Amino acid sequence: VTSNGIRDMPRSQIRLTTLDGLPEFQPGDNLAAAILMAARRGGIVWRDNTVVVVAQKIVSKVEGKIVELNAVEPGERAQEFARQFDKDPRLIELVLREAKRIVRMERGVIIAETRHGFVCANAGVDRSNVPGLDRATVLPDDPDGSARALRARLQTATGVRLAAIISDTWGRPWRLGLVDCAIGVAGLPALRDYRGLPDRQGRPLHATRLALADQLAAAAGMLMEKSAGRPVVLAEGVEFRPQDGSARELVRGEEENLFR
Amino acid sequence: VTSNGIRDMPRSQIRLTTLDGLPEFQPGDNLAAAILMAARRGGIVWRDNTVVVVAQKIVSKVEGKIVELNAVEPGERAQEFARQFDKDPRLIELVLREAKRIVRMERGVIIAETRHGFVCANAGVDRSNVPGLDRATVLPDDPDGSARALRARLQTATGVRLAAIISDTWGRPWRLGLVDCAIGVAGLPALRDYRGLPDRQGRPLHATRLALADQLAAAAGMLMEKSAGRPVVLAEGVEFRPQDGSARELVRGEEENLFR
Repeated sequence: VTSNGIRDMPRSQIRLTTLDGLPEFQPGDNLAAAILMAARRGGIVWRDNTVVVVAQKIVSKVEGKIVELNAVEPGERAQEFARQFDKDPRLIELVLREAKRIVRMERGVIIAETRHGFVCANAGVDRSNVPGLDRATVLPDDPDGSARALRARLQTATGVRLAAIISDTWGRPWRLGLVDCAIGVAGLPALRDYRGLPDRQGRPLHATRLALADQLAAAAGMLMEKSAGRPVVLAEGVEFRPQDGSARELVRGEEENLFR
Repeated sequence: VTSNGIRDMPRSQIRLTTLDGLPEFQPGDNLAAAILMAARRGGIVWRDNTVVVVAQKIVSKVEGKIVELNAVEPGERAQEFARQFDKDPRLIELVLREAKRIVRMERGVIIAETRHGFVCANAGVDRSNVPGLDRATVLPDDPDGSARALRARLQTATGVRLAAIISDTWGRPWRLGLVDCAIGVAGLPALRDYRGLPDRQGRPLHATRLALADQLAAAAGMLMEKSAGRPVVLAEGVEFRPQDGSARELVRGEEENLFR
């Protein structure tokens, strides 16, 4: 039994473990180095096919994607929306700038499509857990690239084959409560494709692609308590064939979207 | 170290374990007894606050929610839709009967609201993994009740405090790939409420309710391989305050729904 308690883990088990004692991240910090240090202190043994799930918030912080709201000049549209719904016009302006397309904007909620193609509330602009009263984070420019870079550094340091996911916490149109989704993926397929495989009765399973990266993000989200500063979770025992992967696999194309 | 390999599991770890060797379920089967037997054979040690996640499909089967398609007489609307999109008119008729309201019906896809208030494809009607070519399952009448009954039986037999979730595999409007969601909940809060709690900077976390039951369903879904017959997953180490719970906590009311 190793210090993280795993011995000959059967294929039918998944273990999710938090990395504790991570610092408050600043722009320019070395995220991989901080993760390696926290893992060493926590007695983590790195194994092949461990998936490192990292909250978007700290990736945005180390990449400097923090915006001083005092430097944001709200336009007319932002001012009107802010007045109508009692919001901060600078924050609304920032959301409009981060959005490639506004999907819905009513009753005080903005649902927008980001440059990356993700559809989410406030185009990923978020004020929680950002030091300073007048700052907000925006999404990384290239979350797949962030995941790739983190994965490469961790693999070099540990000598094992890893995967990385950057996750963000989103609402859903027809369900209450937030669930984490993957916005950056490296080293594993974002979609697990069962199409063409037989079901237990030998009939083809129609239209069954599971969103593995989102399942992983949701699972890790259970441990990423929103005020407790546990933004990194390791997932061991997940079965997948290593491949480059991309969160873009999860983006529904316009022609497939029934819900515009 | 117990036979399922856990010793003094810290609070910051979650372990997901499949129950292997479950039978092909038939109407009237005792699901709790089958789970207890598989757990005994698998050397599972039951612990307080273990969450038992069960796929909807086997709950529907034991509750006899299997429909012979030959007994379904398609109406005009079903026939027209089936002709237009090359579908089985009996299956479409069944979807229309299971739906309280049709949300979208175009390009060969039916998104419907079920009697329970869930919005999902085909109102939960599903043909995969049902023995016999001309049969489909429909959702349980009262999935919360199914979860409650299962939880009560397992608690009585094991003497520990458990929670139960019935999960189904759903698509998402703006994301490709399916993710499991909770349709029945007993013994834990479906929503974990962080509203009013401070973030790391002491500012209130706005609008943060995490969909714990959906996170658990998604996590378990990683292990419920669609053709491998692993429809039950145990989750240990999840932090929650035991309470009745209900999947209805996750249903977005009409007035909160931006996406109609």
